[in-house]
Amino acid sequence: MIERVTIVGTGLIGASIGLALKRAGFDGIVTGIDTNAAELSAALFAHAIDRVASSELELRQATEQADVVVLAVPVLAVLDWMQRLAPVLKPHQLVTDAGSTKLQIAEMAREQFNIDGTARFLPGHPMAGKEQGGAALAEAELFRGATWLFTPVDRAEQAHEAEWRAWVARFGAHAMDMDAARHDEICAWVSHLPQMLSTALAALLEETFAGDPARRDEIAAIGGRALRETTRLGASPYSMWRDVALTNTEPIAATLHALEQRLAHLRENLRTPELKEEFRLANEFRAGKTRPGKP
Amino acid sequence: MIERVTIVGTGLIGASIGLALKRAGFDGIVTGIDTNAAELSAALFAHAIDRVASSELELRQATEQADVVVLAVPVLAVLDWMQRLAPVLKPHQLVTDAGSTKLQIAEMAREQFNIDGTARFLPGHPMAGKEQGGAALAEAELFRGATWLFTPVDRAEQAHEAEWRAWVARFGAHAMDMDAARHDEICAWVSHLPQMLSTALAALLEETFAGDPARRDEIAAIGGRALRETTRLGASPYSMWRDVALTNTEPIAATLHALEQRLAHLRENLRTPELKEEFRLANEFRAGKTRPGKP
Repeated sequence: MIERVTIVGTGLIGASIGLALKRAGFDGIVTGIDTNAAELSAALFAHAIDRVASSELELRQATEQADVVVLAVPVLAVLDWMQRLAPVLKPHQLVTDAGSTKLQIAEMAREQFNIDGTARFLPGHPMAGKEQGGAALAEAELFRGATWLFTPVDRAEQAHEAEWRAWVARFGAHAMDMDAARHDEICAWVSHLPQMLSTALAALLEETFAGDPARRDEIAAIGGRALRETTRLGASPYSMWRDVALTNTEPIAATLHALEQRLAHLRENLRTPELKEEFRLANEFRAGKTRPGKP
Repeated sequence: MIERVTIVGTGLIGASIGLALKRAGFDGIVTGIDTNAAELSAALFAHAIDRVASSELELRQATEQADVVVLAVPVLAVLDWMQRLAPVLKPHQLVTDAGSTKLQIAEMAREQFNIDGTARFLPGHPMAGKEQGGAALAEAELFRGATWLFTPVDRAEQAHEAEWRAWVARFGAHAMDMDAARHDEICAWVSHLPQMLSTALAALLEETFAGDPARRDEIAAIGGRALRETTRLGASPYSMWRDVALTNTEPIAATLHALEQRLAHLRENLRTPELKEEFRLANEFRAGKTRPGKP
């Protein structure tokens, strides 16, 4: 039975996991760890966590006594925590994470966990979030209807692992297992490309218009839903996306390059019937089986 | 007093104008014209129009007896209707439109209207819409909070023109006058670029994954709000956007080219500190004065 959960990183995702656990009926103890004292306080204030661990002694106790440790920090920090925890945790303990890329995490899980005498590590990735982070925006229902990806490194399944999957189901998320490399390739298309695209568009607009008050005000007055939606992710924090870019560089570069070529093709065909074919394919995407399913 | 309004094109925008007029208290007669009989019936059924004009005789009566003729059709069809109406309408009549580009329309308005013995033409462009068209999706409140652009060709103002502007204000829209060339340049950024981007991304995904059922299903299952929002406009109809591309080719090509270069720059800097600068600029855009103002 999972009775003690320690969440490392009590920002939007970590605090939402705490709230989701409580909403789903978890009555054990949730401890929070975060280098940012404000995030930690906000998570405690929201009752996403029951207690905080701050001193070295508290950190050691919170991790060594936990049944499950959830790493809800950017990817490079997940890798740091994995190296720190691998030598000290015990086989009955489960470590999982919410990192946005999975290949490097799964490789470290294979090398340093899931072997004789070590704790289990189940790489995870809830496909939920907001363009701005922080415990203050956390929600118990953040994961309802979302896909929660796992990229297990072997077929063994420890007791806490099955139970953690049951909690994820109670959050309202749909679990889906996949290979880590495939995860990173698919996420480059559905998540990292839209992010980089939105960042590039927002940065381009800012650089082009911020120094031109008249046009800047016209953009703000005239821009509607189309511009708001395509630039929404421009608000996303570099701190998280730096790690995504560093740990999934090749797949992201490949999708960006493909989009650059597609935009050039469309640009060269603004006055030819080929534009009709682009609209036909795009209409198919939105009407067809590839379209993201939720409303 | 405007007592007879004839709406040419009773799709989403035309039918919404009819509904908005009635919601705002217009108690004159609204006549609809559309080459698509289904759209015309849907507009009549929704009470967006009071009567339809179909035969040649009815079309002539509906346009020649109208106080205001609203052209709510794609841009090239607006230009066709302008040529058809210019020789037959009278100086007391006002023609306006809802076309997405304004330079060619304003040029024709200057040449064929607003001179001795001709009707007035006030080029207009409500910044509202949906990714799918049709009278069935029309709403009386579609224009509330939206900007309604006008690109007048001279400073003269006929009585019906002032009254039409008052109706637009009663729809809840904010009128804004600007130069037609500037309109087309700004709209390339805030509207046409997001559209072409969304079309290119959706077309790319469709071509890459539609023939690969396993990956296609993964995209659909894993894709969330980021992918939904950045591809939403992929559902937009070619029939409308063909005319936008044909009548605003250079400004659209310039924005696409700038975005291609920006994406390449970001791609080349996925592992350098320059990525931080891109996120900083994008964050500024979303927090700053250039950001589209509505929620």
